[in-house]
Amino acid sequence: MTEDAFQSSDTARSGRLLKHVNNFQFDGPLKLELGGRLQGINVAYETYGRLNSSKDNAILICHALSGDSHVARHNEDDDPGWWDIAIGPGKPIDTNRYFVICPNALGGCRGTTGPNSLNPATGRRFGAEFPRITAGDIVEMQCVLIDHLGIHRLLAVIGGSMGGHQVLTWATRHPDRVAGAIALATSARLTTQALAFDVVGRNAIRRDPNFKHGRYIDHDTAPAVGLALARMLGHITYLSPESMREKFEPNRLQTREFDTEFEKQFSVGSYLAYQGDKFVERFDANSYIKLSLAMDLFDLGKTPEELSARLFRSECRWLIISFTSDWLFPPEQSQELANVLLGLGKQVSYCNVVSRCGHDAFLLSDDLPVYGELMRAFLDSADNEQINDIRKDEISNPQSPASIFGPNGSHRIDYDQIVQLIRTDASVLDLGCGRGSLLANLRSNGNRRLTGLELSETDVLACLRRGLDVVQADLNSGLAAFAEAQFDYVVLSHTLQAVRDVERLISEMLRVGRRSIVSFPNFAYIKLRKMLSEQGKSPNSSGLLRYKWYNTPNIRFFSITDFEDFCRERAIHIHERVALDTEEQKVITGDANLLADMALFVISK
Amino acid sequence: MTEDAFQSSDTARSGRLLKHVNNFQFDGPLKLELGGRLQGINVAYETYGRLNSSKDNAILICHALSGDSHVARHNEDDDPGWWDIAIGPGKPIDTNRYFVICPNALGGCRGTTGPNSLNPATGRRFGAEFPRITAGDIVEMQCVLIDHLGIHRLLAVIGGSMGGHQVLTWATRHPDRVAGAIALATSARLTTQALAFDVVGRNAIRRDPNFKHGRYIDHDTAPAVGLALARMLGHITYLSPESMREKFEPNRLQTREFDTEFEKQFSVGSYLAYQGDKFVERFDANSYIKLSLAMDLFDLGKTPEELSARLFRSECRWLIISFTSDWLFPPEQSQELANVLLGLGKQVSYCNVVSRCGHDAFLLSDDLPVYGELMRAFLDSADNEQINDIRKDEISNPQSPASIFGPNGSHRIDYDQIVQLIRTDASVLDLGCGRGSLLANLRSNGNRRLTGLELSETDVLACLRRGLDVVQADLNSGLAAFAEAQFDYVVLSHTLQAVRDVERLISEMLRVGRRSIVSFPNFAYIKLRKMLSEQGKSPNSSGLLRYKWYNTPNIRFFSITDFEDFCRERAIHIHERVALDTEEQKVITGDANLLADMALFVISK
Repeated sequence: MTEDAFQSSDTARSGRLLKHVNNFQFDGPLKLELGGRLQGINVAYETYGRLNSSKDNAILICHALSGDSHVARHNEDDDPGWWDIAIGPGKPIDTNRYFVICPNALGGCRGTTGPNSLNPATGRRFGAEFPRITAGDIVEMQCVLIDHLGIHRLLAVIGGSMGGHQVLTWATRHPDRVAGAIALATSARLTTQALAFDVVGRNAIRRDPNFKHGRYIDHDTAPAVGLALARMLGHITYLSPESMREKFEPNRLQTREFDTEFEKQFSVGSYLAYQGDKFVERFDANSYIKLSLAMDLFDLGKTPEELSARLFRSECRWLIISFTSDWLFPPEQSQELANVLLGLGKQVSYCNVVSRCGHDAFLLSDDLPVYGELMRAFLDSADNEQINDIRKDEISNPQSPASIFGPNGSHRIDYDQIVQLIRTDASVLDLGCGRGSLLANLRSNGNRRLTGLELSETDVLACLRRGLDVVQADLNSGLAAFAEAQFDYVVLSHTLQAVRDVERLISEMLRVGRRSIVSFPNFAYIKLRKMLSEQGKSPNSSGLLRYKWYNTPNIRFFSITDFEDFCRERAIHIHERVALDTEEQKVITGDANLLADMALFVISK
Repeated sequence: MTEDAFQSSDTARSGRLLKHVNNFQFDGPLKLELGGRLQGINVAYETYGRLNSSKDNAILICHALSGDSHVARHNEDDDPGWWDIAIGPGKPIDTNRYFVICPNALGGCRGTTGPNSLNPATGRRFGAEFPRITAGDIVEMQCVLIDHLGIHRLLAVIGGSMGGHQVLTWATRHPDRVAGAIALATSARLTTQALAFDVVGRNAIRRDPNFKHGRYIDHDTAPAVGLALARMLGHITYLSPESMREKFEPNRLQTREFDTEFEKQFSVGSYLAYQGDKFVERFDANSYIKLSLAMDLFDLGKTPEELSARLFRSECRWLIISFTSDWLFPPEQSQELANVLLGLGKQVSYCNVVSRCGHDAFLLSDDLPVYGELMRAFLDSADNEQINDIRKDEISNPQSPASIFGPNGSHRIDYDQIVQLIRTDASVLDLGCGRGSLLANLRSNGNRRLTGLELSETDVLACLRRGLDVVQADLNSGLAAFAEAQFDYVVLSHTLQAVRDVERLISEMLRVGRRSIVSFPNFAYIKLRKMLSEQGKSPNSSGLLRYKWYNTPNIRFFSITDFEDFCRERAIHIHERVALDTEEQKVITGDANLLADMALFVISK
């Protein structure tokens, strides 16, 4: 185990004083959600970059459980910030462009009023008497700060984990004050498992004999063992099983020599002992209890219906990011948020970033090239609400790796046909939208209500860079997120032949779209028929069908006639059929099933 | 939350005295693996059923961390045993047939010598002075007991979790004394994550002020808070996220009223508080430390090579069972054990039981219909080493759901052909073996060295019931477990057309088998060609090709000629080709690619 193993995203800095903190005194009162009120609040916050004259470039950063206002360094001599990798000049959250504000949370112990602060009513520290607070209370305090800074509408609110709860709260309680919401590694409510870990951590603190019912400061002591145990447990949940293996398995039994009363006979044991001991130097046990309880009590709704009723109020554009190896805030919870927003017709993008780093991923550099660039692209387009810089060559040369039009990407005459078929005021859902070429074509044509679903992480990022809304999703999982007739058009171009459950997907498309457009290669095309009938070989050719039988992504082998039979058997209306010869780039008017290598149908229930 | 939520598999019984315990005094000394020796050991054990005259029907049960000798009730008035569902007359481990022995583990606190026992050297209780023990020490003590009972060879050793470590130890240290090994929900070594949870649990105990460096008994106290915290943490890891959700989410905030000093404001919180408090009534903290350390130190090898060197010694037949939702001992660890045993050419069956119950699954009734029946079938065939009761109708009517020979299962002339092609002394690996029909045919023909891989849980159980060795595996994951030329024949019958990565699978087969036999439907069969060329439709027919383009499992569309081209391009030797008309049940001698609906190739590198 290297020394590095002892460094972690948020514990590199111990209890040193923060040098660039601003303090805002709010005399209050702040009325609390669960009863009671606080007066004479201090808000410790730091800012980066400059607020522009129209005051519309402000971004609020909401920190997680053990974070603070020092999100980034202010200069080279400054202490490291907890999100230096993401915030600074030229970085994903670019302080050359944006005015970044990061306050310490209410109830914390790094400057803002919390259990360790003096209670003005008694002149003694609050301790355990600090009232129960919620994510809502933390946000209300942030609201007062934003008012104080003269900002009405935030360009974006950004936060991960507990910070994500604040993002969700901002967007739903103050919809007029948030233009963009970026929620990372978070959820509408904790899983039972995550809640259970918090309970054990709090029990460790509360049953530490030095806790003294929370009045430990009066006794000049602290529940150091309990807080360290809670922190050790937390650390396990922030890492993924695979990152723990990589970190500690090169030598499981090797330990580091340092002074601790905790067990250190395994490498992971001495790491946990070190993290536990360090944490108690910089964090307050009552703050830990109050903030973890605020997380545990956060509940935006436990069913899609409840969630929908809450998220309905939001008016911002959303970016939701989860991480594949995060088991504390599992990706399914973020997917559910994205799905409910999709169902509501909100502007939302979602990506489940492939990561080995667990819940901590959003604080680490490993996956920054994905989640950082997603944030940058999202903020870019939030900053330029009318995207006019779509390059024409991008539109005509999609070069999508998923294209079956040959490796060099030729002009997509099927896109031309689809664009012609769709009214400019129509809402469109593009299934398997790739890098967003068709959607960009539609936007150039005047369409505005556009949503894409795409499986590839790279393609999701490409769409965001074009200012398009795209949700990462596997079509084989269906379209349950969407309401009946939610879209004027649902498009499935060149994908049906690669779908596992064809019947379900078509039936879902018919439910969700007033009209559906399906395009696919025609395997009864004359050249392909001849290969089988005359040569006895599985059909393939250049371009459209360049793959061999053993490596083709096309797992469904069917013809125009087959698709028409399929529709007839299910009483599916065929409104229009366009048959194409993509090699000759022309529309076929004769015997389509024999002469077209591709077809496009407009269908409905 | 119901009262039931407070019941758990192994805590239903509190500290009551066990009535049917036998005590065996072993004067020793027992030399311990990590140094030191123990003298004057007491072994508390219970037995069920009767030892037969040849003393070859004995089964040893190894309990998990918090278990004891009381594995099952002895009669209706008896207290519940921790595995009543699995052990008893007519149950999977049938005490009408087998003599079942369950000793309390060395280092435990339920009768067998452990930290709570009197140290004969000092006349005081051992406490923290009890030596460090290993799974090996626990097994050596069991060995002495088995000797005492006059048993040389155990029909089976069975255990889950920590008990599984003992099973692995028995099979590798005393190969001549174990005929069958059943290892459930276990691993060759703990994951770093599981180890880390144990470390936190031990820290909670050791830093409890009442621990007194392990001498708490001398001070007439006990580290009840620390032990309860360790137990709470353990409980979370024994459950799956989904089972926790199902148990506690109907009402997250509802709590149960009972006397505790732990937090109980969430339903899961009051459950954990209850479990923690109950546990300290029946378990000793020093035992918890010693036994959890024995688990943490268990290490059969951290690479396949190290594992292989250890498992090489085993001579028993193996049954390895994991559970899909077990994240404490993840299925991959059991798969690795099975793979290494396969690679060594050992007799092994493996099943990853679909379960929602997490690590506890092996103690619960939910999945007993699968894991219990797997154990029953395994023990049945261990009890009847020569299986002669294969019913002929089973062989000729496979009725496999995966059969592509029509829903009613007709005679498989391809099996007849394959059996004819394989020498009776050859070793055979059947990929996608279904319910074992081909393997049973081969066994009837005299073949003995037979191994099957199959994805379906139901089919794995069917194979075990036939006394066949089968490992649950997805062919799309490859054959990395096997060595070069490990088998005389590798068979892939009627599956190639459903495989994703054809090239990899064929190349793996050629590596692992001296000869490979591949059979598949021929899509250039005359009737199929005509459907495409004359009707312009995707080919389908009755029987062999009864599926439609949108629901067929056949995702690869190829002909005999295509396969021959494929072999030629890769310099794969074709030793034999058999072309069949399965409707007419005859071999085709003319234009195979036109007239055969199925083909069978014998190939090699």
